[in-house]
Amino acid sequence: MTDTTATATEAARPSYEPTERTVPTRSRERASYDRELVHSILDEGYVCHLGFVRDGAPVVLPTLYGRVGERLYVHGSTGSRPLRAAGRGEDAPGLPVCLTVTHVDGLVLARSAFHHSLNYRSVVVHGTARPVTDPEELRTALDALVDHVVPGRSADSRPGNAKEIAATAVLRLDLTEVSAKVRTGGPNDDPEDAGLPHWTGVIPVRRAYGAPVPAADLAPSIPLPDYLAAL
Amino acid sequence: MTDTTATATEAARPSYEPTERTVPTRSRERASYDRELVHSILDEGYVCHLGFVRDGAPVVLPTLYGRVGERLYVHGSTGSRPLRAAGRGEDAPGLPVCLTVTHVDGLVLARSAFHHSLNYRSVVVHGTARPVTDPEELRTALDALVDHVVPGRSADSRPGNAKEIAATAVLRLDLTEVSAKVRTGGPNDDPEDAGLPHWTGVIPVRRAYGAPVPAADLAPSIPLPDYLAAL
Repeated sequence: MTDTTATATEAARPSYEPTERTVPTRSRERASYDRELVHSILDEGYVCHLGFVRDGAPVVLPTLYGRVGERLYVHGSTGSRPLRAAGRGEDAPGLPVCLTVTHVDGLVLARSAFHHSLNYRSVVVHGTARPVTDPEELRTALDALVDHVVPGRSADSRPGNAKEIAATAVLRLDLTEVSAKVRTGGPNDDPEDAGLPHWTGVIPVRRAYGAPVPAADLAPSIPLPDYLAAL
Repeated sequence: MTDTTATATEAARPSYEPTERTVPTRSRERASYDRELVHSILDEGYVCHLGFVRDGAPVVLPTLYGRVGERLYVHGSTGSRPLRAAGRGEDAPGLPVCLTVTHVDGLVLARSAFHHSLNYRSVVVHGTARPVTDPEELRTALDALVDHVVPGRSADSRPGNAKEIAATAVLRLDLTEVSAKVRTGGPNDDPEDAGLPHWTGVIPVRRAYGAPVPAADLAPSIPLPDYLAAL
């Protein structure tokens, strides 16, 4: 059985296998290993927080990412340090990383300060990130990064040329050791606080887009495309 | 000169002192050590990504935080592992962490896939997080965590009682080794791409709040307070 087959079999399973470090020590009821849930959380975002160890100390950098099947691609522009640490070429040792994506869905306002919370969805991926060197895979990764930011955008932009592709620094991280964590619902106040005079409930939070600002040199004849107007 | 005086003198300086690890290897023109800028970025958020090292590997968890002067307080609810690792009591060794806060301000859509980018503001804090043990400081920290989520909320909720304060797990991280990174403005396409037929510009991104959802047991006589309606 080849690696490819193994990956395909693995990807067909509905859940990721929990490991010691993907099982939380608290709020276990919020943890999930459901593959579809993990994919949906990842696909809604485009900025992850990438953690790695440098000189024994932790470093966390915000970085663009994209997903293609069971692979994440992480952009190197903010992270030449992790890219250098991951090494070069197919035999590079790679870099142990923790990649985390978080969406805040609501502010949970309890009657007591102590029970204030957030509704959120997050995904934490552990693994070893390796530099992408194959030009075809780099193209795929670059498209995925662009399409995560705006779905459909890679088809409406000039594709990377050979020079740009060679200058595109991307790390690959397989989705193997993965968990999601989700909180939903209202506040969990203590029963004895029910009579307090404070407003309690949830304020929904979402990402919103403002009116597009055309570049200074955009020709007036070029209209805003539908996929951008739809945002 | 006591430690307190030293901190006060330090806090009066307009900038944080750059260190080897707060000077980026790329896009240095985007880096800043300006204290007011750092504070403003931190004060606009309430979720950080906290990185630490566990068994030699990086871990990044989304966590609530609040700022009081030159101190950050990090909530322990999602992080009993870092809290345990930081130790207990005033003599605890503490936990080396990297705390990162990121705001996305815009999608930068260039004509070429390669030049797509984001406008953003981020702060990265390196240091050693230590458990807060003093009850008064725990109260201050709990108020700061609540007020970061909604300014003014701590005054409109029941304060923590002795039992809750004792159960509040908070780490403190001093703002000493700190940097901000900011990208603003439009796309930076190559001049030879100026004639391409793709829409180019910036889509502003912001955080938006939906209509408040009252808790199921909220008395109808309790109105939505002004500070929540203002969101």
